Parts: sequence; C-alpha cells; structure tokens
Amino acid sequence: MSFHSPFRNMFAREGIFSEQGTQGALSMELTMKIEGMKIYDLEQPRFAGMPSFPALTPPYHYGLHRRHSDTYNPEQSGPRSGASAILSPDHSGTHVDAICHQADELKLMGDVAVAPGVESPHGFTQLAAETIAPFFTQGFMLDVAHFKGAPALEENYAITAEDLEGAMKAQGRLLMPGGVILIRTGFGQFWNDAAKYGKAAGLSPDANRWVLAKNPRAVGADNLAWDALGVRDETTGATLSGHLELLARRGIYIFENLNLEELAANHVDHFLFIAAPLKLKGATAAPVRPLAIEIQMQSSEFMQP
Amino acid sequence: MSFHSPFRNMFAREGIFSEQGTQGALSMELTMKIEGMKIYDLEQPRFAGMPSFPALTPPYHYGLHRRHSDTYNPEQSGPRSGASAILSPDHSGTHVDAICHQADELKLMGDVAVAPGVESPHGFTQLAAETIAPFFTQGFMLDVAHFKGAPALEENYAITAEDLEGAMKAQGRLLMPGGVILIRTGFGQFWNDAAKYGKAAGLSPDANRWVLAKNPRAVGADNLAWDALGVRDETTGATLSGHLELLARRGIYIFENLNLEELAANHVDHFLFIAAPLKLKGATAAPVRPLAIEIQMQSSEFMQP
Amino acid sequence: MSFHSPFRNMFAREGIFSEQGTQGALSMELTMKIEGMKIYDLEQPRFAGMPSFPALTPPYHYGLHRRHSDTYNPEQSGPRSGASAILSPDHSGTHVDAICHQADELKLMGDVAVAPGVESPHGFTQLAAETIAPFFTQGFMLDVAHFKGAPALEENYAITAEDLEGAMKAQGRLLMPGGVILIRTGFGQFWNDAAKYGKAAGLSPDANRWVLAKNPRAVGADNLAWDALGVRDETTGATLSGHLELLARRGIYIFENLNLEELAANHVDHFLFIAAPLKLKGATAAPVRPLAIEIQMQSSEFMQP
Amino acid sequence: MSFHSPFRNMFAREGIFSEQGTQGALSMELTMKIEGMKIYDLEQPRFAGMPSFPALTPPYHYGLHRRHSDTYNPEQSGPRSGASAILSPDHSGTHVDAICHQADELKLMGDVAVAPGVESPHGFTQLAAETIAPFFTQGFMLDVAHFKGAPALEENYAITAEDLEGAMKAQGRLLMPGGVILIRTGFGQFWNDAAKYGKAAGLSPDANRWVLAKNPRAVGADNLAWDALGVRDETTGATLSGHLELLARRGIYIFENLNLEELAANHVDHFLFIAAPLKLKGATAAPVRPLAIEIQMQSSEFMQP
Repeated sequence: MSFHSPFRNMFAREGIFSEQGTQGALSMELTMKIEGMKIYDLEQPRFAGMPSFPALTPPYHYGLHRRHSDTYNPEQSGPRSGASAILSPDHSGTHVDAICHQADELKLMGDVAVAPGVESPHGFTQLAAETIAPFFTQGFMLDVAHFKGAPALEENYAITAEDLEGAMKAQGRLLMPGGVILIRTGFGQFWNDAAKYGKAAGLSPDANRWVLAKNPRAVGADNLAWDALGVRDETTGATLSGHLELLARRGIYIFENLNLEELAANHVDHFLFIAAPLKLKGATAAPVRPLAIEIQMQSSEFMQP
Repeated sequence: MSFHSPFRNMFAREGIFSEQGTQGALSMELTMKIEGMKIYDLEQPRFAGMPSFPALTPPYHYGLHRRHSDTYNPEQSGPRSGASAILSPDHSGTHVDAICHQADELKLMGDVAVAPGVESPHGFTQLAAETIAPFFTQGFMLDVAHFKGAPALEENYAITAEDLEGAMKAQGRLLMPGGVILIRTGFGQFWNDAAKYGKAAGLSPDANRWVLAKNPRAVGADNLAWDALGVRDETTGATLSGHLELLARRGIYIFENLNLEELAANHVDHFLFIAAPLKLKGATAAPVRPLAIEIQMQSSEFMQP
Repeated sequence: MSFHSPFRNMFAREGIFSEQGTQGALSMELTMKIEGMKIYDLEQPRFAGMPSFPALTPPYHYGLHRRHSDTYNPEQSGPRSGASAILSPDHSGTHVDAICHQADELKLMGDVAVAPGVESPHGFTQLAAETIAPFFTQGFMLDVAHFKGAPALEENYAITAEDLEGAMKAQGRLLMPGGVILIRTGFGQFWNDAAKYGKAAGLSPDANRWVLAKNPRAVGADNLAWDALGVRDETTGATLSGHLELLARRGIYIFENLNLEELAANHVDHFLFIAAPLKLKGATAAPVRPLAIEIQMQSSEFMQP
Repeated sequence: MSFHSPFRNMFAREGIFSEQGTQGALSMELTMKIEGMKIYDLEQPRFAGMPSFPALTPPYHYGLHRRHSDTYNPEQSGPRSGASAILSPDHSGTHVDAICHQADELKLMGDVAVAPGVESPHGFTQLAAETIAPFFTQGFMLDVAHFKGAPALEENYAITAEDLEGAMKAQGRLLMPGGVILIRTGFGQFWNDAAKYGKAAGLSPDANRWVLAKNPRAVGADNLAWDALGVRDETTGATLSGHLELLARRGIYIFENLNLEELAANHVDHFLFIAAPLKLKGATAAPVRPLAIEIQMQSSEFMQP
C-alpha cells in the first residue's frame, strides 16, 4: 500500500505514452484519461472580452507583434519565432485572491497595517500572491444549481445558508476542515457571454458564515466575485462581506471564475484539488489553472454525519 | 490496489488540516509536507527586473494603482481592496513554449502554413497556449552540473550528448518515453542576478538529438532558452536548433526558467510532474508553476538498464 | 486690422507676462487671451472610457502606481514625486493618422509595398508618425451642423458633397489649397457620452471627393473616423473610403476626435492651425493637441469666389 | 524687419500651399520654411530604448499587432489598416512635468494636501497634466555648452548660477518674466546613446535660484531631469531641488528631454515658443512636441540691460 502503486500502470511502457499519445498533446482536448483517472480542468480560457469587473483596468489583452515572417531567413532556418506580451488584471479570469487583497479597518490579516513599506508602488510586501503555497488537498463541490433543479441559478440570486446545507445533505457529503469548498451557480456555462455572466448568483452573508464554520483552507465559485453583488451585510456594514470575513479576517483564499461545468456533468463532487497560482511578487491575486481528480472511496471512510 | 489508497492518510482527520495548518497557508514556505509527501515548487518568483531576453518587450511589470485607502469608508467596512494589472511577455519567467512559437519554413508543426487566419493580431488560432493539456506525468531530472562536479556549469557552456549520457548513467536512470526530461545547469540559483543568469549553459545541437531520441512529451531547463545561445547547428543552419526540432518538427514542449535547485539539494531526480499552463488564447507561451512530487519506488519496477 | 497686429503687443514689456499671468498657468482655463488673440484648444481630454473604436485594444488607461507618500522622507524634502505610465491606442483621442495607417492593394502611398522591413514588430519603417511635419498653416472649418440648423447632425448621418458646398457658400469661404479643412458634425459635445459619440455623422464617398478636389494638406472632423461608418463606396468597393483615397492614395492627413465646439460657438471658421503630433517611431497615428488662432482679415484678401 | 512681417506673406495666394508643398508633408524634413520663417522642432523622437530613468516603468513600447495583411480583402479595397497601442511613462521622452508631480511636505502647489480624493488610482484630480494651458509665449535659450566652449558640458556637471549669468551676458539677452527659459547642456546630441545621455549635466541648487529670480512661466533643458543628479541642496535638504522649488512651491513648469541642437546650430536664442501638452487626465506629466519660431527684432525693443 504505497503512493506509487497507482502510477505503476500509468507509466507502463505499452501505455498511453506512445508516440500517438504525444501527438495528443497538440489537441484541444483538455481533459486526460490516465488509466481511468480523469483530470478535470477548472480554468476558463483567457481572451480579450472575457467576463470581468469593469473597474479592473486595463482589461486583458494579447496582441501579437512579433510574427514568424518578420525576420524569416531560410538559409539559417530562422529566426522563426512569434512572441508577444499579455496585459491582465491580477483578478482577471480564473484566479485566486491573495490575502493582501482585502483590508479590515486598513489592516491586513494578522493585524498588519496598510502603510508605506507594506503597500508599495509595486504591490504588497506581505501576504501577496507569491506567498500562496500550492494547493494539493481534497476539494468538495456543492452544486447549488443542481440542488435547485435548474441549469443555473437565477440572475443575481443570493445563495443562502439553507441552500448550502440542503445541497450538502442531498449530495451526502461531509466537508472536511482544511479542504477546498467550491460552490456551483451554473454560470460557468456563460463564460462566452460576458453580460449574462456578470449577473451570476453569489453567496449571501449568511451563506458565508455557513462556509466559515466548515473551516476550509480555500473556497471558490463559478462567478466574478464569490459574494452576491450589491448585498450589504447588516453586521459588518460591508458589501462583498465574504471577502472581508474570509480573506482579511481569517486568511481563507477565494478562487473566482472557476469552470465547474464538467465536474457537474460527471457528478464529481469530491476530488483531489491541485492548484499552483503564479508567484507574482506583490500582486493581490494570481491567475491559476486548477485541476481536479476524482477521489473514489467508500463513503464510510469520510462521510459519517 | 487502488488510486485513492495513498490519500487515505493524507486526509486523516487528525492530520495536517488542523486550524494551525490553515494558518500555515499564509507563510512563505512554499513546499508542503503532506504525510511525508513533499511537493517541490519549480517556479521562479516573478518580478520586474527578473532575467529575460531583451527582445521580449515590454518587460514584466506590476504597478499597484488601486490602494486600500483610496476608497476607504469605515462606516461600511469598505470598499477595501487593492488590485492592479500585470504586464508580461508570454515567454517571461517560468513558462512553457506553445507549439506555435516556432515555425519551420514558415510552417507550424503538422504542416500548418503561417498565414492570415492562423497568425492574427490576437495570436495564433492553432497550436497556441490554450491547447496545451495539463501535464500529469513522470518527470526526470538530469543534474549535469552535479555530474560535472560544480555548483553550476560554466557560463555559456554548451551541454553535449556525452554530458547527458554520463549524467543519466551516474544517476542510474532509465528515461521513459512520454515523460518530461529536465536538465539542470545550476543557473537557477542566480535568478536574482539577471546578468549572470543570462549567461546560463544550454543544450548543444547534439544534446538536443540525444534528448529527441528519448521521445519525451516535454523537456525543460533552468535557463532562458533551453538551447545554448549563439550555437549554430550545422545540419539545419539554425541557432536555437532545439526549438526548431522539438517544437516545430516534433511537437515536444519546452519549459524554461525552471527552479531545479531544491530537487537537486534533495537528490530527487524522478518525480510526478504536474503543470497546468494558463490557457492564454492565441499566445505563443504560457506562464506556469510546475510542481514535482518524488516518486519512491524500487528501481526494479522501472529502471532496467 | 490684420492678423499680425496682436503679435506686436504680445511681447510688450508691460504686457501679459506679469506674475498674475504666471499664476494663470495653473488654472483649468484652457484658452488664453494674449492681447486679444485667443487660442482655441481643439483637443478633447484623454481619460479611460473616452470614445474609441472597440477594435482599438488595449484601451486608454492611466493608473497611478507611484504615490507621493511611498518614499516620503521629510528630512530630505523628498523623494516626493508621483508618476506612472499611460497605455493608449495610437488612434486614441484627438489624433492624426499617419500615412502608413492605410494601404491600397497592400501598398502604402508612393507605391511602397507592405513587406517585412517596411511593416515590422515595432511599427512601420516608412511613412509612420515620426515623419509628420508640424502643421503651421491656415485652417478652415465648415460647420455642417450649423448649416443644417441643428446643434448636431443626425446620428450616423452621411454628409454629402452638397452639404459641404452649401456650408462653404453660407459661410462665404474660399478654401485655399494646402490648408486644413475641418468638418464639424457637432458630436464633439458628446465626448463624455461614448455611446452617443460613437454614432457621430461622417463623410460620404462623394463628400470625400469634394474635399479631395480642394487639395488640402490635411482634413479633420469631430468624430471617430472622419468617414461615415458602414457606407461602402461603389467605385472602390471600400468602406471608410476617405481613408483609402486621402491617406493611401494622396498622402493627405486625417485628424479625428477634434473638439470644434468652441470655434463654432465663436463663429471662427478661418484660423492659423498649429499641430505638432508626437514623433512615435513606427506608429500608425499620433496623439496631438491642435491649436487654432483666429485669422482676422478683410475678406477681399482671400475670399474672391 | 519685424517679427510679424513673415506672417503677412504666409497666407498669400501665390505662396507655399502649392501641390508641391503638400507632397513635402511626407518627407522626413521636420523643419519647415514658411516664407523665411523656420519652425524648429524641439522634440526628440520616441522609441523603445530611448533614454529614460530606470525607475520609470514599464518603459516606452510600441508593438504593431494589427497588420495590413491580417484582414486584407481585395474585393472591397479593405479593410486595410494597421494600428496598435503605445505604452509610455508619463515622464518619457520630451515632456513637461505637471504641477502635481511634486509635493512639498505632502502638499501640492497652493497648499493642496495629498489625500485620497486628490491622489487617486487614476491620477491626480488637481494640478494634473490636463490643466496645463498651451504655451504660446516667448522663449529664450541659454547655451551653456557654447558659453563653456564645448560641444557638450562635462558628464554629470552641475551648472552654476555663474554659468547662467555668463551665458546670458555673452548672448546679450534680457530674459523677460513670463517667458520660457531653456538651458542647453549639449547632451541632446546623444539621444541615441542612452548610457551617455544619462550622464547629462544639470542645474545646481544655486543655478535654480538664479532661474527662479527671472520669474519664468516654464523652464526646460536637454537632459532627463533638469536638475543635476545626485546633488543635495543644503537649504532644503532635497535632491532634485529645482523640482521642489519650481513645481511644488512656485508652479513653474519644467520641460525635459528637449532637443536644442538645431536652435544652437543656427544661433537662435530668442523665439516664439509653442507647446501644446496632451491633456492626459490625472497624469503627472504630458508628452509634448514643442516648436520654436525665431523672433527677429531690433534689440532696442526688448534688450536693454
């Protein structure tokens, strides 16, 4: 009983890594079957015009200015490269918020005052994106859209604690502390329709408190902002109250703009969650392409009520 | 004998996911022990002034223009967020080259002519970064610097096929087809010294042919360009000949600017290699934070000479 | 009463250059009276969200990342500077198109083929923005909106040759060859309403031919594109046919997004036109702040029909 | 023989606005003779790699991503346009500092505290670039390099008050209050050699006080920073003390990176100075292409000692 046993088949000589398999690396198929182990890709594709908050400026952009033909020299088989630069808000596309993204009374998590030396022209010197350790832990998805019997929740719907409790029970899941809790609104399917996606459902203040009680290492959703937009928490007076409570007060990471559609289509709600956010020094968020691998186990192992 | 068995301990209730463990997420410690399984982080940190080719313009930049105090409103616990945008060459920092990055006689891998419709203002419509499937496969590191008995290879040294063969035999490794082959020059330790790092060793044309014969899915190194700079291959007439042969002719991915120092320090040369490059539509490369997890096995399982 | 008289007083000792005058430099009043000579500012202000073609990406942006307090050190009276960078399409805001902006059968003005060496990663090596000489010549404004008796022309209206002929006669102007002809649609007053401004009137193909016959050095209008949008010229098959005929075939510059409101309010239609476009090497347009100074003269000097 | 006479001929029918004149607009010749009136162009060309302070990031960049061939459609004579975006520090190339660029004890000129609401994510809401009125006034150049008998001053030389007094007397000039005073170091000839240009001479603290006593509306020089670099003023404790005294305390504009070579070569030291800085809302500086037109007059009119 050891770590490497499942990999024995994976690397078998006659296995998937034939030359044909290598060719497959060029295909658009972004989920791989490795001897029955499917890897789910939770990142939305990145392109100019993808959904984003209007306040996040300048928006995502990629313009190709170095073309293959610019310096083509057949005698020397080259140069023959194209390249360019991306411009992207740190909170653009699928990303995870760094702890420094939010302040509580102008203090970061851990009572760190927002002062020169902490907040600088080139970002934060504490709790910024480069301090986020890779995620390699169990993940759970609560499919609230499915629980409510709809392909997607209603526009601008504020998910309640009751919705989350109901989905958890319907799915028969016990959320483990230290894991990652992902909430599905169903709006991930509208990624190519920025106007529609901008009206995605999000979490109400009481739903945030329900999540906090589960003591996760991180949370995430298939919407722009995790929180329901425009809802003010009576206790704190805050909008986007989850951001205040999770990031600034508890140090719990928030993933946004996840693609949970394929997990949902395959009824996968418990998985190994792997995410390695880019170490952008000073940044308030990091783009990331999280992966999920289904965990198959007897419910008796983890799921006692 | 099943996939999930190693994870049983990982998720044990009394395990690492105590509240203390959650707090650890805020630390700068970027390698995690999960019940004895260590995750190696192969990404170099990203910051303005990090090593890069001068031709890659504009260079990496992150400037924080939204500060916490800008809209501070204590009555409403907010708004209270900082955010900004990054600017980055697609080939900046630790990244993987997309297949479209190189052309051979103005054709991409698979005989795709570089023409309008394929090469566009917003990048390539074929073989670009968003087509790169996640890497979840075995990886091998050949520590050429260690083989040559030096902390790092000589500046601008062109690694030979003999060096690679020697390092492989000294390490007792059999490289499996379909895996990822990483070459260590030792220059990763100079990431904060861009001038020094810019003179890193790289692969000679014959070293590239040695690697090609191993039939990897991807390769990588701890330098700017994989290939030795300024060396022209007599057969093809090309400089950066590995780029021509690997990417444009064989469709084998190249990772650059890897941090292999911690693998080397721990004598880890065979590992599960996990990398999920960002799906930047049209881009010629994607930034990525690859991870490595040591594979512990009896050499008899894989290592027949 | 002649044009040059104001200059005589301009430099008089007892004149405007008192200390009070200097203070005035700080005010928002952007037109200056210099002994009776009024300078009209024809540039619209530049800000994120100003009207622009959606295809011009990334859009204009200015984010302040270096703040005064970041390195405040009272002992040394500093450092104490704020600074940042702008990002701007070359065709953003008030600008003049460079000749290289348009091609006719993939040839630039003067039969220059669009080939590598002419069109490069960093712009055009011929006929680009840095080749535009300063404009210091007479200008004329035809106020078509006023001629049609409206504050602004109808949305998406295509101005005809008859409109231009009528406005010229109503104003009693004889347009001199080599001068600059500005056409007022009235949409400049909607600069803060990007949606409205995007529907500005523009020139029809026959209006373009009328203008061409006047043999101007440059033309301009208070809209995004000079030409009426969506109108196809039957002769050339081209949309934006003025761009084809003026720039690519005749080498006549086009100014866009001018602010002609104050000229109109003051009934100034003949002026010294001064414009010094930025010498952006390789760029296809240059931002500029044109100025106009009324020419007061007896109509007999210039205006014989 | 007086200043205004050239303007009389300028608009004469038989004058310069022939068709040949129009063709001239395409040439690289950036000085125009208009009936004997020569316009001097004081802007340096803008390109990636031009001299700049390293702290001004990201640096200037122009990459052409929309190419003529991308959407070439011969049936419709188009589309057929190239375009792209520039990225530029506000203090890049020839520019004028806005008053908000400098603070004195965290206050801007006029006792405006640097506070949220004044200093914002998108720049300053007071005294920023868009508040700079066009310059249309007399200018003077003191050619210190010529006075010292050298093509250019020594590297890093700090110009003294005695140098300025000497140059003024040698040139026989009386500087008028309210005018623009330009100081020539001779380093403008090294614009294509960024390393050399970065060591340009600049003004010492006492030279700044000499200039202040002349009560100019603006000043300027052919170097990166007006002030001598690395020199600390004993009185204020400040480096770049001219910036503190001119901008923050007196509201006098500073032009930097001027090209004064052609004025010097033609011995033109008194001129009409025309400059229309771009109205970049919120920015701390504005790029500009200043023009100079020689003022020919009898010295008796202005020049009594």
